[in-house]
Formats: sequence, structure tokens, C-alpha cells
Amino acid sequence: MTRQELISNIKRKGSFLCVGLDPDIDKLPKHLLEAENPILEFNKAIIDATADSAVAYKPNVAFYECLGTKGWEAFEGTCKYIKGKHPDLFIIADAKRGDIGNTARMYARAFFDHAGADAVTVAPYMGEDSVKPFLEYDGKWAVVLALTSNKGSQDFQMIRDAEGQPLYQSVMKKSQLWGTPGNLMFVVGATQGALLGEARNAAPDSFFLVPGVGAQGGSLRDVAEYGMTDDCGLLVNSSRGIIFASQGEDFAYAANASAATLAQEMAELLKKRGII
Amino acid sequence: MTRQELISNIKRKGSFLCVGLDPDIDKLPKHLLEAENPILEFNKAIIDATADSAVAYKPNVAFYECLGTKGWEAFEGTCKYIKGKHPDLFIIADAKRGDIGNTARMYARAFFDHAGADAVTVAPYMGEDSVKPFLEYDGKWAVVLALTSNKGSQDFQMIRDAEGQPLYQSVMKKSQLWGTPGNLMFVVGATQGALLGEARNAAPDSFFLVPGVGAQGGSLRDVAEYGMTDDCGLLVNSSRGIIFASQGEDFAYAANASAATLAQEMAELLKKRGII
Repeated sequence: MTRQELISNIKRKGSFLCVGLDPDIDKLPKHLLEAENPILEFNKAIIDATADSAVAYKPNVAFYECLGTKGWEAFEGTCKYIKGKHPDLFIIADAKRGDIGNTARMYARAFFDHAGADAVTVAPYMGEDSVKPFLEYDGKWAVVLALTSNKGSQDFQMIRDAEGQPLYQSVMKKSQLWGTPGNLMFVVGATQGALLGEARNAAPDSFFLVPGVGAQGGSLRDVAEYGMTDDCGLLVNSSRGIIFASQGEDFAYAANASAATLAQEMAELLKKRGII
Repeated sequence: MTRQELISNIKRKGSFLCVGLDPDIDKLPKHLLEAENPILEFNKAIIDATADSAVAYKPNVAFYECLGTKGWEAFEGTCKYIKGKHPDLFIIADAKRGDIGNTARMYARAFFDHAGADAVTVAPYMGEDSVKPFLEYDGKWAVVLALTSNKGSQDFQMIRDAEGQPLYQSVMKKSQLWGTPGNLMFVVGATQGALLGEARNAAPDSFFLVPGVGAQGGSLRDVAEYGMTDDCGLLVNSSRGIIFASQGEDFAYAANASAATLAQEMAELLKKRGII
């Protein structure tokens, strides 16, 4: 999907919601466990229930990989289901891969060609040759980890160089030499308030994938205040708050309501900024 | 496998060789392609041919993952074959994972419990909560990327903080607060000569997994000079130089010879240091 298509979808839907598909098998509604592939059934129901409110889905690859064959089938099946039924939805394979040359190229093939994802999250530690292979596909994206929303993000991402620039900003600035705002996004966590504004200064035109709103403590209003651009420039992810809004038989209705509430807030913020 | 067992194996075999099992399907000997699982057959033959010269094997998980189900079967099959037939060999799942809390815990379960690997390579960018879940298993190891041997290692790993300390050393020093020399190793590339000595100063007692000898240009003599400790403290990896020493029907013989040559050099270096 191109940047223009993504922006159009955001405007049309009045939403920049990304739904995190982290289907922890222990939390799935009990009545689904009898299905042939419970995770795939769960995801389909969640997608159908939330597709009107969301512009993107982000399956966390670990939740699928840990189940072996069945898990990989569920992952690919989920991507295919999205692209078949809702082709305007953006798919981010949250794999956090970071490896060199040939290996990165193999990962790119697996996620882009085989699974049909639009984007893959990539860890920057190994540098250019670990990111570039993901930038060589038309209409596909690398989402580089910059400032994450976990506690450990303080350990290295905030280390300042001799000029006082924190590592996450070095990552953002250097990565922009390898890609463009049309094939490169950044993960920028929402839990660190004004830091989002500093990240925005480091990459004024790039889309940010923002985790950490809701369960992890970030506020949507702050994210919009510090991170929104004239093109929106944001995909805000929510996982558990939507997919496990209820763990009963009404899980799809609860997910629908939870996603709609977030989308409504997002529409307000987009209006306030004059984007819709 | 405990640190003491690993050191004993190194002394007994007079080798600190790790064989990288990166079985690129396009490079496999043609006559194996008829087997039910060519990669598993290839790996078994390579393992049997090199087990006398090696103390460790390092399957690069990407080469297996990119083949879907069959690939994962080959990966698990390879680990089980090693542990069944050569239980004194150390297995490093080269997965370069880096994700938080629950996700990291799932990866640890997949590689340690299901596949039976002794160690997993871990990317440090997300900090403590992405590394610690791999340190919670008795006799299992996290191998943290510190200084890699690829070109892109210059992009971020060498950024110096206000005190002049490069990022890779911050990674090494902080990681040692989370683990011990008994459950934490570091990836330190061999292509950067004397840098290995600086890495050694940052972690005097830790094992280093050293890629980049041979094909990538590092010399074994330099690695020993700058990196060896009284306990050896090194696992030096060679992949293509061994497993694709020949791509013909004689591939196992060629791998055997290539591994034996390296092991012989290693024995000399261990003797010189008085370790054997």
C-alpha cells in the first residue's frame, strides 16, 4: 500500500487505529477452542467486528510462531483473510527482525511475498544492511524500532552521544538516509509524553506506529498533540483493550464497541487538526 | 549445558569451533534434493562429519523459517538429532530475537523447551525486559548481540556516549547486571581486530560467540590473541567455509576436512595459552 492510499484510508474512515492481533491462546473465548484453528477463527471475528473502525492490523508474529505449524497457518491465514475481504486494510507483521543481508532478505520474502503483509517491524541494532532489504519492495514498508514503550527502552535508546543526541534519534535520522516517508515508519511509544514531540522533530514527515496507548498508560490526546502531522502521520495501536474487551461469547461485540470508541476519539482529533 | 560442561568439552576436544548450520536450499548438493526433508538430511550428514571437531552448532533460524512448516521441522529435527546422538554439543539458535516480556518469554519457550536449544541470540535494543526472559532457565543461555561483524555494525554500535564509551560496550556492561558468565554470552565480531580486545576488557569472564572468521575476513590468531581467556572464553563460528566446502556428493568429507583444519589450529592456540 502506498503512503497516499494509507492517508486516504485514514481520512475516509476518520480513524488512525491499528488493532494488535496478539491472540494469546490462554485468553481466547472458550467456545472457540473447538474450532479447527481457534486463533484464525478468533482473528476473523475480530477483524470483521472492527474493520469499520480500523485502518491497520498488527499481528505480533511471536504469538503465532510459538504454536508451530498451526500458528504459522493462522498467521498467513489472517493476512490472506484481511487482504481478501478488506483490501484497504494495512497489515504490519510485528516481527522485530534484525539480521543482515541475505537473512533479512529471506525475512522480507517470507512476510511480504508469502504472507502478503504491507509492513514489517525491524530492529535497528545491526544497522543499514539489516534494514535496507525491507525497503526494496514497491508499496511495502519497514517500521523501524526507535523509541519503544517498555521499561527497558530506557536502557539503551536514551543513551546520549557526545552532542547530547539520544540513540533513538540517531536511529531515526540515519534510517531516513536509507528510506523515504513512503517506505519507512518508526515505532515511537506513547508512554513518554513530550518525548513523542522530540521524535516528531527528528522525522517530521514519517508515519509513527504508536504502541502503549491505553493499557500501557499513554493518552491518545497527548499522542495527537505531540505526534500528529498535516497528513495525520500516526497509526495508534491497541491490542488487549480491543481483542480481549470481553473473553466471553460476546467478544466480537465488545471488540466492536471498544474499537468504535477509540475511532470516535480519533475522528475528533483529526477534525480538530482540520484533516477531515 | 553449564559453563563448566562447556569448558570441559572445549578442553577434551581441543576445539572451540561452532559450526553455523545455514543450509541455503539453493546451495545444497543436488543429490539430496530428493530426500523427504533435504535440509534435515544435509544437516545430519554435516553434524556427523564434523562432530569430532566442533563443540557447538548454530542453526540460523531464518534459513528454516523461510521454508514454513518443512523448515521448522528441519530446525527442530536438527536440534533433536544433535541432542540425541551428540549430547555434549552446545546448540545456539541464531534467532536474534528482541521483544518484550511475554513475547520474549514465548520465544524462550519455543527455542529452549520445544526445540531443546542451549542458547538463543538476542538483540539488545529494547533493553532489560527483552533479555531477561532468556536468563530464567537453568543451564540455558542468552547470547546478546554486542559488536556484530557486518558493515552496518558501524551505524549504531560504535556511537560513543558523552564519556566516550561506544554503545556496544554499554550493552555489554549493562547486560552483565542482568546475567552471569554462566548464562550470558556476547556476539563479538572478528573483523574488527583490536576491537575484540576492548570488548574483552568490557566482559573479562564472558564467553564470546565470534562470527566473521574466514569468509568475512577475521583471523583466528587475532581472535585468540585479543579474545581468549584462561577458560578459553570463545566459540568461533564458521558456516559456509565448512558446510559448503564442497557442494558435490563429497560434501560431508569436505566439511570434515575443513572443520578438522580449523580445530587443529584451535588446538594449537589452546596449547599456546596452556589451556590444554
